[in-house]
Amino acid sequence: MRVLGIDPGLTRCGVGVVEGVPGRPCKLIAYYIVHSQPDEDIALRLLHLDTSLADLVAEHKPESVAVERVFSQHNVRTVMGTAQASAVAVLAGARAGLPVQTYTPSEVKAAVTGSGTAGKAQVTAMVTRLLSLDAPPKPADAADALAIAICHIWRGGTRARIQAAAIAAARRGGVRR
Amino acid sequence: MRVLGIDPGLTRCGVGVVEGVPGRPCKLIAYYIVHSQPDEDIALRLLHLDTSLADLVAEHKPESVAVERVFSQHNVRTVMGTAQASAVAVLAGARAGLPVQTYTPSEVKAAVTGSGTAGKAQVTAMVTRLLSLDAPPKPADAADALAIAICHIWRGGTRARIQAAAIAAARRGGVRR
Repeated sequence: MRVLGIDPGLTRCGVGVVEGVPGRPCKLIAYYIVHSQPDEDIALRLLHLDTSLADLVAEHKPESVAVERVFSQHNVRTVMGTAQASAVAVLAGARAGLPVQTYTPSEVKAAVTGSGTAGKAQVTAMVTRLLSLDAPPKPADAADALAIAICHIWRGGTRARIQAAAIAAARRGGVRR
Repeated sequence: MRVLGIDPGLTRCGVGVVEGVPGRPCKLIAYYIVHSQPDEDIALRLLHLDTSLADLVAEHKPESVAVERVFSQHNVRTVMGTAQASAVAVLAGARAGLPVQTYTPSEVKAAVTGSGTAGKAQVTAMVTRLLSLDAPPKPADAADALAIAICHIWRGGTRARIQAAAIAAARRGGVRR
């Protein structure tokens, strides 16, 4: 199973592509950070993220997309940008007809480290080990996107497959207003 | 100038299409509420909103899109959904190559009623009068989307035109990662 994991952010959005099956070490395919400038127009920032994610989905042809769910623990301004980026991320998968699954930060941490309260360094160390990398991913925040993809692979894709059928049906059905 | 105004929401998203020039009564073209169910999968909800807005932009061919800017005065859960819907709304315009402008709620209220702290009933009454309607728009929350479109027409489109050039350039330029 090939999964594209997204750690949504408006200024820095992490993207990780991983292949694997539940319970075994996974294979790193690629990772990216999509950037935009905080002083840039919001329409341009969202359009850039949208185009970049659509390109990466087209390039890597994942079977599903996994996105970290936004929480409100940070300051409100940051959360709004993250929520907007997460909408673009979820849409990038849905528009390509792929199943999209969201995971909370603690679900992701628990999946890769065994602890839902693991620190950033621990997540990075486990991602490096689970993907059999010689060194941690650089930039470091790409590790989160890779962790999300690994989390999705290991938790299996049952929910994802049910949702894929629903998305396919919705796309066939046209628009409800 | 024909403007498509969007009052973003995940459960109910208001869309109003208005034609006019600054300072004169405007003409109502159409209004809609795009619905989705809170218990539905987030990917399906965002995809439905995305498809519906793209269809309405294609159908009405506005020259620009105006979106109400999200604020954090409400509860955090609502704000997250609204922020996600606003990203989809802004993208609907940007992806069609249109200039997209955002306005705060008080800018919209001030534009149509003269007061940035006007109540919902006052906004609805002014929208009804400014569009020369026999009765207030139904459902009532469509009035907000129409107010956003009127606000954009009356405030002129200078910023919008500058941004349109930037969007056109960004779409020509392909993807920066």
